[in-house]
Amino acid sequence: MDILRYPARGVWSTLISRALASQASQVTDVVSAIMDDVALRGDTALREYEERFTGAHAESLAVGKDEIERAASLISVELRDAIESAARNIAAFHSAEMPLPVEVETAPGVVCMQRPVAIERVGLYIPGGNSPLFSTVLMLAVPAKIAGCPDIELCTPADADGSIHPAILYAAKVAGVDRIFRTGGAQAIAAMTFGTATVPRVDKIFGPGNRYVMEAKQQAALHGCAIDMPAGPSEVLVVADDSADPVFVASDFLSQAEHGPDSQSILLTTSPRLIDCLPAIIDEMLSRLPRRDMMMKSLGHSRLILMHDDAEMMEFSNLYAPEHLILNHRDADRLCTMVRNAGSVFVGPWSPESAGDYASGTNHTLPTSGYARAYSGVNIDSFMRKITFQKLTREGIAGIAPVVIAMAEAESLDAHALAAKVRTTTY
Amino acid sequence: MDILRYPARGVWSTLISRALASQASQVTDVVSAIMDDVALRGDTALREYEERFTGAHAESLAVGKDEIERAASLISVELRDAIESAARNIAAFHSAEMPLPVEVETAPGVVCMQRPVAIERVGLYIPGGNSPLFSTVLMLAVPAKIAGCPDIELCTPADADGSIHPAILYAAKVAGVDRIFRTGGAQAIAAMTFGTATVPRVDKIFGPGNRYVMEAKQQAALHGCAIDMPAGPSEVLVVADDSADPVFVASDFLSQAEHGPDSQSILLTTSPRLIDCLPAIIDEMLSRLPRRDMMMKSLGHSRLILMHDDAEMMEFSNLYAPEHLILNHRDADRLCTMVRNAGSVFVGPWSPESAGDYASGTNHTLPTSGYARAYSGVNIDSFMRKITFQKLTREGIAGIAPVVIAMAEAESLDAHALAAKVRTTTY
Repeated sequence: MDILRYPARGVWSTLISRALASQASQVTDVVSAIMDDVALRGDTALREYEERFTGAHAESLAVGKDEIERAASLISVELRDAIESAARNIAAFHSAEMPLPVEVETAPGVVCMQRPVAIERVGLYIPGGNSPLFSTVLMLAVPAKIAGCPDIELCTPADADGSIHPAILYAAKVAGVDRIFRTGGAQAIAAMTFGTATVPRVDKIFGPGNRYVMEAKQQAALHGCAIDMPAGPSEVLVVADDSADPVFVASDFLSQAEHGPDSQSILLTTSPRLIDCLPAIIDEMLSRLPRRDMMMKSLGHSRLILMHDDAEMMEFSNLYAPEHLILNHRDADRLCTMVRNAGSVFVGPWSPESAGDYASGTNHTLPTSGYARAYSGVNIDSFMRKITFQKLTREGIAGIAPVVIAMAEAESLDAHALAAKVRTTTY
Repeated sequence: MDILRYPARGVWSTLISRALASQASQVTDVVSAIMDDVALRGDTALREYEERFTGAHAESLAVGKDEIERAASLISVELRDAIESAARNIAAFHSAEMPLPVEVETAPGVVCMQRPVAIERVGLYIPGGNSPLFSTVLMLAVPAKIAGCPDIELCTPADADGSIHPAILYAAKVAGVDRIFRTGGAQAIAAMTFGTATVPRVDKIFGPGNRYVMEAKQQAALHGCAIDMPAGPSEVLVVADDSADPVFVASDFLSQAEHGPDSQSILLTTSPRLIDCLPAIIDEMLSRLPRRDMMMKSLGHSRLILMHDDAEMMEFSNLYAPEHLILNHRDADRLCTMVRNAGSVFVGPWSPESAGDYASGTNHTLPTSGYARAYSGVNIDSFMRKITFQKLTREGIAGIAPVVIAMAEAESLDAHALAAKVRTTTY
């Protein structure tokens, strides 16, 4: 961890830099070949890649209803209850986000409307590996269902024995996923982009993954399939004053660090005492946690920064545009009003990032790498389009025709003017 | 124009195809070189490209206040009034779209909020050429201002004499653009992506352009600058029954055709009479319009399709996912409720596309090429992020800690569990 005391503004641009792995062109080429192959050979290619990459010999790509039903009995009652409880909170918050139709008569006889309409078919990607990300199943499928998407597909890789973690299957069932497919990696993204005999082509792909999955999503976007957002390593920025409990701050730092070796944690504080005592507390906590080596890597590009005052901290935070922003500060509510760029904000000492990662109700699919400057996290809008309608009466078009004709002719678009003229004069 | 009578469903996938020009890799390479050059040499590179591509020898890239003020006197009173009137309607509709903050207590002591916050700095691109697209200035800058973006930049190429069309300057002034720069093409996109000494780096780029501009926007997105949406040639789909006036339909077809040689117009109708009489009416109108040759090209990939009934027409329309959908039908309101995929919909005989292109109040920056399946047109959301906040009380975290801990441990994220534990038990 770098410790910086009152860094000059001239070095801020360095301090907001991310530990971004530059994308090797080799990844681009490998993914491009997989995309082309799946587009061409469909299910046959999918099965071959699954066997090559995971060792799984999937008899059936589609997961059967019986396998999904059986999942409930394979996880603890406690975990089932937790999944249901988290799903309820996520549903409560995302239901409140639902946009309403808009209708305005902008001029006499000119009624304009905006109506939210759910995307027809969405594809969710859930990575495999040691940590089954069933929480991400909830974060994507619950809002998709609330938005009203009629078709929610999910792809996730099977283990070598062909099975999928039962917590993923149970979360998918609770959230209302329509179909689950046993495929992962770039080939799963390719399948949802182009469609195969088994996996349907979707309109938009959501979800996290490794660099191959991320590259595949970017290529999917160039092939006309929308994606949730660009992605980079996860990050947290903690703003703390001398009221902050160092143990809380340390645990938030480590939560972030365990996301992966590229994760970044930044502390901004006005408290010299906090800076001084934090490293020892983190070291002690680290010694008791299993993923120690990976966390050490992540902490290697983390920063503890001492600053003059709240205004300076919030200015830096807005420049950094963190995915997660924790305001562990006695005036946290006031600082909230100064937030311009962030993904999700955790207000006050009792709001750890892990609350939002799982159960508070907000979404944990958030913009990293400074994308919060222009992107929102996943929310109900992510699963809808807002279609506009306009209905003019005969008087309505007569009223605005002079405006349409003047502007169209000044833009040299005479047929545009004509379409207004034929409706308002005898042609 | 192809005329098809009751085509079998098996050929629909061909009928919804677009006349998409495949992107030549040469365009990618040219744009990539320009992006790198502007990133490296800034204003010097910008000036060289402007001189090379437009012949303009710009003394100053930034357009002066006096030049903007003078613009009003260089266009007609009629056009000034039209621009102001259109701006008012666009403002009325986009103001009504403004999202409200959301606040929900999802569990006792767990308050989740979603607050819309304007993007800090947006960049608008307006192409040059013979048709000055001042209407697009309104469509982008008016909602940006209403959203509350503090910094609205605009780039547009100058003519060979270094001047910018006064209607563009006047529209920019009316809409509240902060600064205007005399630069166009891929180099303008590069300038807004990386920033130069004169042109600031922006968070999101909006606006139309030729294939070089479009390619530059896609490359901008890979460099971390957001863009409004992917773009393709413009298109309209008209759904008409035997109540439709063929002259209205013909004028709508030609409005679309004059957008460019790649534009596509499709008519779906249940009326054999309409199909039979339309070609002659279009021919006659064409003979009186100046851009005849270009329109002939566009009409070359347009289609008149006879269908059995309304349900079939709407099914085809949703499969095509048109940018513009005109419902020239006696039951237009009923058909509206069947629209799943479209950019903007024009309801009834008195609602030509040109009304929405200029003055009804809806936005004319819309998803083409079937992107309406997953993308909305530009709207107030396009200029904002929705940032989430959560504030838990001590009781709040105590209440959901068991859920957080159970889920975190099942995902093997022990530090996540720890962050909840330290706040709820004596650590």
